[in-house]
Amino acid sequence: MVDFNDNSHRRYNILTGEWILVSPHRTKRPWQGKEEDIVVEERPSYDPNCYLCPGNERAGGHINENYTEPWSFVNDFAALKNDVPQAKFKSGLLKAESESGICKVVCFSPDHSLTLPVMDVENIDKVIALWQREYRELGKKSDINHVQIFENKGATMGCSNPHPHGQIWAQRTIPQEVAKKNKHLREYWNDNGVSLLAEYLKEELALQERIIVETEYFVALVPYWAVWPYEVMILPKKQHRTILTLSEAERLDYAKIIKAVTIKYDNLFKISFPYSSGIHQAPTDGQDWDCWHFHMSFYPPLLRSATVKKFMVGYEMFATPQRDITAEMAAKTLRNLADTHYTKN
Amino acid sequence: MVDFNDNSHRRYNILTGEWILVSPHRTKRPWQGKEEDIVVEERPSYDPNCYLCPGNERAGGHINENYTEPWSFVNDFAALKNDVPQAKFKSGLLKAESESGICKVVCFSPDHSLTLPVMDVENIDKVIALWQREYRELGKKSDINHVQIFENKGATMGCSNPHPHGQIWAQRTIPQEVAKKNKHLREYWNDNGVSLLAEYLKEELALQERIIVETEYFVALVPYWAVWPYEVMILPKKQHRTILTLSEAERLDYAKIIKAVTIKYDNLFKISFPYSSGIHQAPTDGQDWDCWHFHMSFYPPLLRSATVKKFMVGYEMFATPQRDITAEMAAKTLRNLADTHYTKN
Ligand SMILES: O=P(O)(O)O[C@H]1O[C@H](CO)[C@@H](O)[C@H](O)[C@H]1O
Ligand SMILES: O=P(O)(O)O[C@H]1O[C@H](CO)[C@@H](O)[C@H](O)[C@H]1O
Repeated sequence: MVDFNDNSHRRYNILTGEWILVSPHRTKRPWQGKEEDIVVEERPSYDPNCYLCPGNERAGGHINENYTEPWSFVNDFAALKNDVPQAKFKSGLLKAESESGICKVVCFSPDHSLTLPVMDVENIDKVIALWQREYRELGKKSDINHVQIFENKGATMGCSNPHPHGQIWAQRTIPQEVAKKNKHLREYWNDNGVSLLAEYLKEELALQERIIVETEYFVALVPYWAVWPYEVMILPKKQHRTILTLSEAERLDYAKIIKAVTIKYDNLFKISFPYSSGIHQAPTDGQDWDCWHFHMSFYPPLLRSATVKKFMVGYEMFATPQRDITAEMAAKTLRNLADTHYTKN
Repeated sequence: MVDFNDNSHRRYNILTGEWILVSPHRTKRPWQGKEEDIVVEERPSYDPNCYLCPGNERAGGHINENYTEPWSFVNDFAALKNDVPQAKFKSGLLKAESESGICKVVCFSPDHSLTLPVMDVENIDKVIALWQREYRELGKKSDINHVQIFENKGATMGCSNPHPHGQIWAQRTIPQEVAKKNKHLREYWNDNGVSLLAEYLKEELALQERIIVETEYFVALVPYWAVWPYEVMILPKKQHRTILTLSEAERLDYAKIIKAVTIKYDNLFKISFPYSSGIHQAPTDGQDWDCWHFHMSFYPPLLRSATVKKFMVGYEMFATPQRDITAEMAAKTLRNLADTHYTKN
């Protein structure tokens, strides 16, 4: 039996049908390349120059509401707009078509100094409630067939403002990453009559090798096919197609596990841990998405320390994603970290 | 007729079958986020601490040859090794298999201070000749079915040593990005009996909208479906499946166009321009790859200046790649830049 903990191998992603390359022996490699800056900031609760703080003026000249709870607004520099005339273009091998949509910014808290791991569970619960309202309202529109909720956290992840916030990009077409998951979730559902992710979760709970936190209704784990060093997936034990069908107790529990995961992240290198997170759930195109099982993924770039990240470059761009530490090693490290935030000790 | 220069739209990638989102109106967005450091280094021709300079000792204790021409060696911290026992693993929904291969480092020049744009065409020609030898020798091995030649240039692209060098990762399986291209090239070939890229090139040459440089045997253009802001593709006018069938005149011409493109890159923001480049060509699995048409792509991260890059994060990770400047805008900018390196004026 070959030891995959010590030999390069490929793992299959059941959600996308793609393979990733794992090279566990490569962690010994010395690093002489670029290091990220460590930005340890003491942020005030209110910053008069922040365009997301309550009451402040934004770039477009709009004035923010004096919000006291999670609050959303239409992005002033939206990549997607909803007044785009529909058109298709084809000329020889060139093919394009209009895309329309709505981009929103979601402020998690009026308090400029916070981040999800240091917010109260009740306030994270309110963020989820806002995500639910947005998903419902945007998804209702006839020309919105997919709603992508996500957060870019930290300068390393292209986030241009430390005020706690995420984004929503809702659009007419189904984006590529979601289309892959649609296909694999549906195929499994048609073949087996059960949710692919419910089955997967059963297996992970039995093995207990990649689990990080388990709450009453949710599980956080490093997926077997993880690409990013400390990639994490949060999924509900019960098959919910979208975040809309969560009970109040489940929603609060979801808030708890988001807090638990992001606390472990911050504790890993004792910094505010950068990542992109996103919720994948059933499209809002009115089709029957019985097969869907919503989940939230975290893609954090840091690899060895607060300053050394994994670069997804050359080989990864031209060939296939590659990782050095195995999912099991990453899960073990995260699992063993303290449950309270390092700044609260 | 909708003006795609001013409205968000999706473009189709004929090589991968994927779509990318283009938001041309978004260039007006102010940038308050992370800026890259500008590293203007005067490098010596020989650095006693560089583990790639001739005669120096490397991390593994090996001593470099006193090479005077492009030189390659097996990576001391290879992600792929060739002594991996073959095994497949399947348990429920978990699926993995061994992967074996060879990783090599290709030093472009003994001179530590150089980069491709400031190397002589004759010396770039020698780099291509070495790529040919490597592709031939590695590809001959029965357990090597794909040879990926690439370069990560600059600290921003995870390059840990400024000595001019690239890499080769050769392996048993066909990587994902190549598999996509195999599929689309073959389908077009079967349906039309001609090379997809030869047809595409004809169209681009007629339109002259995305061409940057044309030499006797090669064309450099911004592909219609470009993802990275200043992405460029170099392709031979004649359909070569691999770099092996280039005549000596064609190879020299290939060297010329690599130099021309990378000079324009450096001239864009007057810095040594970071990118990952890679050559995609027919797999070495012994199958009939009549449909292949080799090409070299450059994926550079910089967007607005020497310090502001495009972040492929949140939406791009969870949904689909998105860009702000159109391929036509990028091509025009690159086309109009000087043909001589900014440091040589
Ligand atoms: O050149 P290195 O140090 O081996 O490594 C670099 O290129 C590799 C191949 O693209 C990537 O996997 C690494 O993340 C990157 O840092
Ligand atoms: O938050 P911003 O400034 O709109 O932009 C950030 O997130 C977007 C969505 O992931 C990316 O397209 C941008 O590259 C990134 O800088």
